[in-house]
Parts: sequence; C-alpha cells; structure tokens
Amino acid sequence: MNFASDNWAGAHPRILDAVVRANDGCAPSYGGDALTKRVENRFSEIFAHEVAVFFVATGGAANALALSQICPSWGMILCHEESHIQMDECGAPEFFTGGAKLLPVKGVAGKLTPAAVKSALAGFPERPPHGMPARALSLTQATECGTIYSVDEVKALCAAAKAAGLKVHMDGARLANALASLGCAPADVTWKAGVDVLSLGATKNGCLIAEAVVFFDPAAAKDFIFRRKRAAQLFSKMRFIAAQFDAYFDGRLWLDMAAHANTMARALSAGLAGIPGVKIWYETQANEVFVSFPPGAAEKLRAAGATFYPWVTPGDPASGTMQRLICSWATSEGEVDAFLEAVRRA
Amino acid sequence: MNFASDNWAGAHPRILDAVVRANDGCAPSYGGDALTKRVENRFSEIFAHEVAVFFVATGGAANALALSQICPSWGMILCHEESHIQMDECGAPEFFTGGAKLLPVKGVAGKLTPAAVKSALAGFPERPPHGMPARALSLTQATECGTIYSVDEVKALCAAAKAAGLKVHMDGARLANALASLGCAPADVTWKAGVDVLSLGATKNGCLIAEAVVFFDPAAAKDFIFRRKRAAQLFSKMRFIAAQFDAYFDGRLWLDMAAHANTMARALSAGLAGIPGVKIWYETQANEVFVSFPPGAAEKLRAAGATFYPWVTPGDPASGTMQRLICSWATSEGEVDAFLEAVRRA
Amino acid sequence: MNFASDNWAGAHPRILDAVVRANDGCAPSYGGDALTKRVENRFSEIFAHEVAVFFVATGGAANALALSQICPSWGMILCHEESHIQMDECGAPEFFTGGAKLLPVKGVAGKLTPAAVKSALAGFPERPPHGMPARALSLTQATECGTIYSVDEVKALCAAAKAAGLKVHMDGARLANALASLGCAPADVTWKAGVDVLSLGATKNGCLIAEAVVFFDPAAAKDFIFRRKRAAQLFSKMRFIAAQFDAYFDGRLWLDMAAHANTMARALSAGLAGIPGVKIWYETQANEVFVSFPPGAAEKLRAAGATFYPWVTPGDPASGTMQRLICSWATSEGEVDAFLEAVRRA
Amino acid sequence: MNFASDNWAGAHPRILDAVVRANDGCAPSYGGDALTKRVENRFSEIFAHEVAVFFVATGGAANALALSQICPSWGMILCHEESHIQMDECGAPEFFTGGAKLLPVKGVAGKLTPAAVKSALAGFPERPPHGMPARALSLTQATECGTIYSVDEVKALCAAAKAAGLKVHMDGARLANALASLGCAPADVTWKAGVDVLSLGATKNGCLIAEAVVFFDPAAAKDFIFRRKRAAQLFSKMRFIAAQFDAYFDGRLWLDMAAHANTMARALSAGLAGIPGVKIWYETQANEVFVSFPPGAAEKLRAAGATFYPWVTPGDPASGTMQRLICSWATSEGEVDAFLEAVRRA
Repeated sequence: MNFASDNWAGAHPRILDAVVRANDGCAPSYGGDALTKRVENRFSEIFAHEVAVFFVATGGAANALALSQICPSWGMILCHEESHIQMDECGAPEFFTGGAKLLPVKGVAGKLTPAAVKSALAGFPERPPHGMPARALSLTQATECGTIYSVDEVKALCAAAKAAGLKVHMDGARLANALASLGCAPADVTWKAGVDVLSLGATKNGCLIAEAVVFFDPAAAKDFIFRRKRAAQLFSKMRFIAAQFDAYFDGRLWLDMAAHANTMARALSAGLAGIPGVKIWYETQANEVFVSFPPGAAEKLRAAGATFYPWVTPGDPASGTMQRLICSWATSEGEVDAFLEAVRRA
Repeated sequence: MNFASDNWAGAHPRILDAVVRANDGCAPSYGGDALTKRVENRFSEIFAHEVAVFFVATGGAANALALSQICPSWGMILCHEESHIQMDECGAPEFFTGGAKLLPVKGVAGKLTPAAVKSALAGFPERPPHGMPARALSLTQATECGTIYSVDEVKALCAAAKAAGLKVHMDGARLANALASLGCAPADVTWKAGVDVLSLGATKNGCLIAEAVVFFDPAAAKDFIFRRKRAAQLFSKMRFIAAQFDAYFDGRLWLDMAAHANTMARALSAGLAGIPGVKIWYETQANEVFVSFPPGAAEKLRAAGATFYPWVTPGDPASGTMQRLICSWATSEGEVDAFLEAVRRA
Repeated sequence: MNFASDNWAGAHPRILDAVVRANDGCAPSYGGDALTKRVENRFSEIFAHEVAVFFVATGGAANALALSQICPSWGMILCHEESHIQMDECGAPEFFTGGAKLLPVKGVAGKLTPAAVKSALAGFPERPPHGMPARALSLTQATECGTIYSVDEVKALCAAAKAAGLKVHMDGARLANALASLGCAPADVTWKAGVDVLSLGATKNGCLIAEAVVFFDPAAAKDFIFRRKRAAQLFSKMRFIAAQFDAYFDGRLWLDMAAHANTMARALSAGLAGIPGVKIWYETQANEVFVSFPPGAAEKLRAAGATFYPWVTPGDPASGTMQRLICSWATSEGEVDAFLEAVRRA
Repeated sequence: MNFASDNWAGAHPRILDAVVRANDGCAPSYGGDALTKRVENRFSEIFAHEVAVFFVATGGAANALALSQICPSWGMILCHEESHIQMDECGAPEFFTGGAKLLPVKGVAGKLTPAAVKSALAGFPERPPHGMPARALSLTQATECGTIYSVDEVKALCAAAKAAGLKVHMDGARLANALASLGCAPADVTWKAGVDVLSLGATKNGCLIAEAVVFFDPAAAKDFIFRRKRAAQLFSKMRFIAAQFDAYFDGRLWLDMAAHANTMARALSAGLAGIPGVKIWYETQANEVFVSFPPGAAEKLRAAGATFYPWVTPGDPASGTMQRLICSWATSEGEVDAFLEAVRRA
C-alpha cells in the first residue's frame, strides 16, 4: 500500500525496454547522438511549436535552471508558498540563479490567483535599486495539493504576470497528470496560455531518470547549454535519457500512465469520503489526495504497512493532521481497496 | 522640512572634525593603523564584552556579511517581512550567503514575536535534505516601523531562536535610537539578551560612512576577514572610518544624537495626533513616525517642500496611504513646527 | 572505430541487467531504499575503510561537490592546467564552491609533482586577507593524458599538500583504469596515500549513469546532503544508480572492464609506435593514447570512419597536431587492428 | 620613509576640504543629490565621451563589479598572473561574477602582450559547453609592476581582445599615474583605444575613499544599479564620495598628484640605480620601484624605519629578493633622500 510518492514506483516496462534497446553500440556523447536529436525534435511535435529542450538529472535541476535563465540574480520570483521550489529543493533555485529571491504567495489548495499575485507585487513596490524587481512567476501544474489550473486560469495568471513584466515558468513535474485530467493538448496549457519555459517531469510518471527543460521560444535558451554544463547537469550517455522520453511519448504512454494514476486517486478519494471521520482537504483533480484521519488512525495504517507522508499548510495549525496520499502509474485497484479497507478498520 | 530619511542629514561637526584630524601623515592601510586598532578595542568597552569588530562600507554590507557568517548557503534566515534585509537590499543577503533563503514572517508594527517565529518554523518542517534548515533569525532594533523591542522581548525572541537551533543577528542600523529610548546599556539588549552578531550602523546617526559588524564571540568571526575582503568591503584608508566611530562614542555623542532624533519624532507624532483626519499607525518609540494624511494632503505637503516617502505593509491594502517621516540628529524643532503648521493648513 | 571517448560506449550487459532487476515494485525514494543502503555500505568494503558515499549525476558534479566541501568560497584549489576541472566542466567547480579559484599548475604528461605544487604556492604567498588561501589540491588518477600516478607519487603529492594545509581531492573518473594498471588495492592509492575525498566515476567504464563522491572520513561529509540536494543532484529513484554500482563491483567487473580498455590502448599504442611518422606523446599507462599523425592522415582516418578528438597542451604550439585516442570496455581487438591498418594506409 | 603603499598616505588637503564643504545641510541620499549628479556628469567631460559612472567603496569592488557586467558566470577573464584581480582581491571577481574563471597569463614586468593573449586563448580552445568561453580581458594601467602600456600597446591588446570576442576592462587604480607619465588625454588610452569599462581609482592618489566604475557605452551599464546595490556598494551619503572626485578633477589636481608621485619614484629609482649591489627590476614608469637589495640590507632599512613590502614573480625563484617601493602624492624629496642615504649605509 504505497501512497508515499509517485517516485517510489519503478519504471514502466516499455520505458525500461527502451533503455535496454538504446544500449546498442557506440554513440556520440553529451547529446550528440541521433536518438537524442530525434527525441529533442519530438518535443516540438508534442507541443505543436518549435521548442528548445534540454534533458537534466532531476526535477529540481529543471526548475532551478529554467528559473536561472529567466530571472537575474537580483530578481524576484513569485511562487506559491507550498510550491516545490520554495519548500522542497533545499535552495536550488536560489543557488542556480545566484541568489534570486523567492517571494512566497499564499493561495488555497496550492493555487495562485491573479489577485494574490497582484497583492504580492503591491506589497513589494518597485524602488530600484533597493527592492529586488520581480522578474518571474512560477506555477505548478498539477499543483502540490493535487489540484489543477484550468486553461483559463493559467491564461489569467500569465496575463497578470506579463502585465507586470514577469516571465512565466511552469513546474510540470506532474504536467501529464494535469493534461490527462484536463483533456487538452499540451500546447493549450503551456505556450498558448502564456508559459515561457516548462520543467517537464517524467520520472514520477513511469521513467527512471527523465527530466527536461522546455523553452517555447528557442531564442530564449541562448547560452543555456553553458548553464546546464556548469551545473553539472549534462549527461555524457544522453541516449539513455532520450530513450525514456521516446517510449514515454510513444502511443500516448505518458498520458495513459497519468490517467491511471488520476483514476486511482479519485477512487481513493471517493472511497475515503464515504468513511466517517475522514476529512478530504482538496478536490482530487490529479493523482494526490489530502486527507485527515481520525486520531490514531494514521499510526495504525502505517503499522499495517501503508506508506504516506504528513503535509502542512504554513500558518494553519489545523493542517497539522493532514496526510498526503499519492497514486502512480503502478498503483493497483487492489492496493486502493486494501487501503480503504484498512482505513475502515482503523 | 526633511523627513525623507535620516541618511539625508550630513555628518555631525564632531564626526567631521575627527575625520579631518585623522588625516595626519602616513598610516598603515587596511586597518593596520593604530587608530583603527584603538577604536576596535573601544567596541569591547562599549559592549562590556570582548568583541570582534569589522568596519564595512554600508549597512547592507554589515547585514549581509554578518548573515553569511552564521547561515550556510543552504540555510534559511527568518526575518520580518518588512525588514530591511528582505525589502531594501536588493538581495545582498542572498548574494553574500551564496543563496540562503529569507523566510519573511508577519508581525504588527515591524516586530516579530516568539509565537510568529514558532509558527513560521512549523510551516517549514525540517525534512533534510529537502527543506532548507532554518539557521538564523534576524531582528531589527529599532524596527523598520519605528518601534522598539524591550530587553525582555529580545530575550524571548533569542530564546525561541536558540531553542530551534538558530543563531541571532540584530540589524542595528538604528540601535542608538533604541538604546536612547530604552535607557539600557548596549550589552543589555545585545549579547546579554542572546544576540550573536550585530550590525551597528552609525551613518544614519551623524556619521559620513561608518558601519560595523560586531561578533560577541570573537571565535565566531573565524575567517570573516576573508569574507569581508572578497566582498570588496575592506577599506584601504581605514583610519577614516575608525575616526568617525571614535568621535561617535566620545562623550556619548551617539546616544545624544539619537535621543535628539527620537525627541523630534515624538514631538512630530504628538503634534500630528492632535490634527483631525491624521492617523498615526504605530507608537513613536524611536525616530520614525508612520502616518496617513487626509486625501490630497501629502501632495500639498510635498509641494510645500516637505520630503517624505510612502510606506506599504505587505498584504494590507489599507496601508496604501501610509507615509513615513524620519527625524535625525539634525532635525530642528523649527522644522517640526513648520511641518505641523503645514499639515494643519493642508 | 570509436576512439572518441570511453563515454561513447554503451553499458556493459551485466550493468544493464542490474538496472532491469532493480525495477521490481516500489521502493523508498531519494536513497532510502534497501539496495542503495546496501551498495553504499559496499563502498566501505571496496575501500577497506568506513566511508561516506553519495551518488550524483555526473563526474563534473562529483568533482565540484567534493571540492565545495573541502574548499571555502574564498579558497584556492591547485590543479593541473589540463585537468578536467580546469578545462572541461564549464566552471562547475567555481560555481559549486561559490567562487573558489582554481590555480592551474603545469606538469608533464598531465602529472603534478610536489615541486610544481610548492612552486605554485610560492608564487601565491599567503597574505591574509588579500590573497586567497590555498585549501585544496586536486589530482586526477588516471590523468587526462592517460598516465598514472604510482602509489608513491600520490603519497608524495598528498604529503606536500598536507604540509601546506591543503585537503586532497582525487578525480577518479578513470580510477578503475589506474587500479587495473597499478594492480594495487583501491585503498592503497586513495586514503592510505592521503586522499581525503574521491570522485569515483563508473559511467565511462561500462555504466549508464553512475558517479559517486566518497569521503574517507565520514565526519568530513557533514551537511553534504544539503549540498547535493541544493545542487539538484539527488536522484529520486536512486535504486537505479545503486544497482549499477552493485553490478560494477560484482566479480571485479569494474577492474576487468578497465583492464580490457587498458589492454586495447596498449595494443593501439604499440601498433602506432611501429608506424613511421607517428609520434606517441605519453606513455600509455591507462586507456588513452596521445598521438600525432603525419600531415593529412588524421583527416583521412576520420573520413574512413574513425572517431577521435584533438588535444592541446596549453602554451605548447607543437602540441597543435596532437590527437587523443580512447579505448573503452567495449573496444574490440578488431577495431584496434582496423584502425592500425587504416593508419598504415593513411 | 613610507614606501609601503600609496594607500598609506592620507588625503590631499583640497580633497578633505571638499568633503567638509559637502557637509552642508540635508541632501537626497543614494546619489540623488545635486553634487553627485554634477560630478557624474563631470566624468563625461573628463573622458570626452558620454559615460555612465558609478561610485563604489573600494578598488576591488570597482574591478569585480565591472567584470561581473561584462562576463557571465560561465565565462573566462584573461588577466596578468600578477594582476590585482588575480592576486590581491581574495576572489572578489569570482564572487561578484558568480564564479567566472580568471585565466592567469604570464608577461614581463606586469604587462600583457597580444601574443601572450592569443597563446592563452589557444591553450583553452572553445568547445562549448565544456570549456568556459573567454569573454573578457582585464588590463592594469599602470601595471602592478609600475610599468605603463603605451597608447599603441593598449590599442593592440584591445584589438586582439575584440578579435576574440572579448570585452576589455581596465583596472585604473593608478590610471592617473599612467596619464601623468604618458601625457595623453584620458580618452586616448581608454575608450579611444578600445577599453569598454574602467575602474578609476582615486583613493591611492590623494582621496579618502573614492573609486568609480566608468562605462564608456552607457547602454552597457543596463541593470548595473542592481549589481551595485546587491553588492552593498551603494553609499547612502554619496555626496561625500562625489565631493572628493570634484576636488580631484579641479585644476588637474589628480594629474598633479600623480605626476609628483611619479617624479619621486623616478628620483628614487635613479638614486638606487647608482648604488652598487642594488638591482632595479623594471623601468620606473609610474610611482613604483622594484628592487633587490644586497643581502641583509632590507632588514636594516626596515629597522631604520623604512616601510616597504616584498614582491614575488610567480615561477621565478630569483624574484624572492624583490622589494616594492611605492611613492605617493605625499612622498617628499626629503623622504627619498633619506631613504637613499639609508640604502647607501645598509
């Protein structure tokens, strides 16, 4: 009963097969091989736009490098106060940008609103050179709270950002889950909505190690190769990363895996909602469920072999009992049923 | 009618005289001269404790360098959301620490409370290595809102910080104003209360260029000479900085100048409080008054030659009309009276 | 006929099998899984000493992170002027250390000598805080020129370093090649000889993505988990890295692969030495051969399908014709023979 | 008998008077005052070109900030191996640029040549993204060895730099000494010769604290105000810096002071050259003399009250006896004569 994280799951067999197949003879290193070039081009098809794409080692690297390209070291990046870049990357964005400031913004269920963005900016009036000028907005899609921005919501946020002169970054560690839920094209919720640069994660969704930075304006990626290299994020045997993305996109595998994880999460959420004393915090729109169990139940569930982590909303003492349950491409109906049964018993 | 800032005032004649007197013949550079050594020792007398003191160019440098010594690049510094390090230094703390994160904490009238500090820490639970570990707390005394922490308040904050494993930095850009108001010894509100390192500003209070970092445990200043030098903050003709501090401390000049500025501010505040339609935001405990004038009045006052800046409380739209008035050692009663008269007319 | 780099080769089948086998069900992420823990412990056996080991994404990351742990941002790192950290990592060491200085030192055939180290230090006399204090020495084993330090040579360099107060880092991107050639135990040429921290590369030698930082004093790795994380070098699905090292060490696979590469390089070198007009620059002690062909020959060889890169010795115009040939675990005798035949024709 | 450094001298009376006069009433801070604006404009007259000028605290700050504007964090800066930025600033250039690499280049008597620059570049072939791309060349005028580049030499170096795509920085800590010796206009040896950005020092030449960064293309200074501020190099009471430069330029005081220092150095050099056993290392073109005394003499001179420091040429053991003697605006003929007499005795 693993609901600790989608990165506890292994790789989908088709992903692994692709890695094995890629191990065929010699190939130029550092991305000079034919497979890498082909897969890089494939991103342009997926997003229906010419893009510049760069594979990196981790989601944190994708975020931090993307931000370092759109925000100078003296700039400010607005983000949700529960976002991964603010809470979970040990300062990688600050490090890679050379000391940019993340301005944490509050928002219900992990979501930013144009009003909240404007209010945050108003509280940090531009007084060059004293205050750091805001230069970027970072959105997470799906959010850290398992909610999803609609296309219109992304558009509205990007418009608010652009009006303030900000570039927009999207942390798409779980973009596939959002796309599977929204049913829209990748382009709709990214560049067509105003996103400048995307961190596209695949590791959590069935790959081994596969993360990418995607610039929707290739010219905006100028000199990015130097940033990636000096951050020691340029793999020598790049084909093994490219191969994963290749299989990931083949036959819509990425969306199918994400859809499965979402379905499992909704089943989990629906089941939990029917159990007395269980509180569901946010609508389950992607593959995460946030829940409070009756006192003592979480301990019993863990003792019974279930894995999941606590989650905290800054400034809300009531959130102290919240638990986060994550489903992945590998979560089975049986696991969900067993967990629900265990909750009923606990 | 200058109420824009205490750094609009010039230098006190006794300070300037000391600079002139220091210009006597040759002297070793980079702080190797006798005057610098003597004045550095004088800090130990002032604080009734052996200290390590380092002169730097600006208050921002003092803050950022001090913080870089007590917080690693992957650490987090708690500070008030309106503090100078968060709002006014263009990211110097992030730069000098190599990317540490400032966690802005809310608090009425520029003041932090132990409860607010604990709540902020609770919202950022330690999960090594994902979350940045909190390593420092930065207090401002007097605060950015012209309020002052009592000795007991500083003690309580330092105790809360120490309990969480944090080092404590005090931004003392206006420490003299706080001391003049509290009437306590410098030691009482610094090391005796739990402060580890102090930025002692003198520029705003009658000097030309005179800022210092003061470590209350000299051993904690290990390698700080390298930090200062590589930050290009080591003056070659150091004697001209030392001379200012020498005169500053002579005959309690620093406390007298600060007391005068405080007195002027209180007179200003008292006068304004009696004028219908004028709102005083915070108690005037140091040399700053925060005020809202009736609509249109601020414009008339500025047209009449008064200088002052707006001030904003993040997240409080009502604060949009707030103005900050600052008095200095050079503010005259006539200036205050003339301004009050102008307000009454406006 | 691939002699461009050992990272053009794919993964050894046993390495790939281990990755496939590791993909079994769920496992804690970020290195919390049993396999990772087991393999981390295995490093202590391999080095006959309790070590702290950290997997990272690239050899550049291993070097830069290791150096950042032993050299402060105001410190200086001595290294060979042709070393990978100086020439090939786009400033990763400078970035990760927060701005430390690499002091390039000359030396024949990629090797440093105690005399050269002492001379370099003498030319940069310590004058705190003006000059950066030297804090680390970085050696490469095998060197960038395909030569190998004997155990005694490493000892002598470490002794010179220690006498000057420097920590010692070894770039072991090709340590396996050195060990296979020296025939000594891993401990002999590392911690027993005075090395403090090692970058152990496995990617070039038959893995997909497998690099590690090894501290021979676990206490010296304090807080390193934060450095790795904020550098975005902490893999979530760590078991796939651990699995590679597991197979790498199994049955001495790593040493066998390296020995094979060395043997191929010596065959190549011996064959080339017998061809008129071909100049061998350095003794072929590991898996690299540095050679100058007669005018026009390199172009013909490349046209015939051979891959290899030019190499330059800074300051030596004569080196302008040098070519580097690298053999790997996957290089076949047939490839070597075909290349030699092509050289004879060219 | 102070020959330790020109920064051991105090301020010229006319400089100090200007500071005293500037202390007149209130004035906008952070450079918003009328005097600062007037003096900034005056730089455009001095250089016969519209410039953007920024006052900073130290010469190291001027150098490091200027370089950070023209070289990205992944770029390389060529400089003389004895230059101040390489040897004496404790890594400030590396810190301010965010980790750029300084590539030290050898050259006789502190001077770079186009050939040496080209050779250094050839030894560091561009292989994006592995090698750091060279982006800047830094010259020192007058050099650290008291020699001076002719206008033609600066032109040739700038041409070589431009041909390689490098921007050119001039460290003009002692530019006045060079101008006084060359007899050319400030424009001739700076922007007209190809220099992009200049650090203009005045502290060593009769000021208290007065250093400036001068961009010859104001557009190239975009966002520099943020760099200066976040480096904590923006003085609040800027008028006291501006006042020094005002007096500095008045009536050619700067050139007169520098000419005096040069004259004293030449007298010193000429006198020393006539003393048996004394070796003069470099031609005395500015205000510094490099000399070796017979064994034991340096100690006797120091015992007699003379102050001077040793100087080392990296890689030249013979240079171990070298001493550096510096004259300043305040050096008197009597001091020179007394020192020469002491040398004859010693």
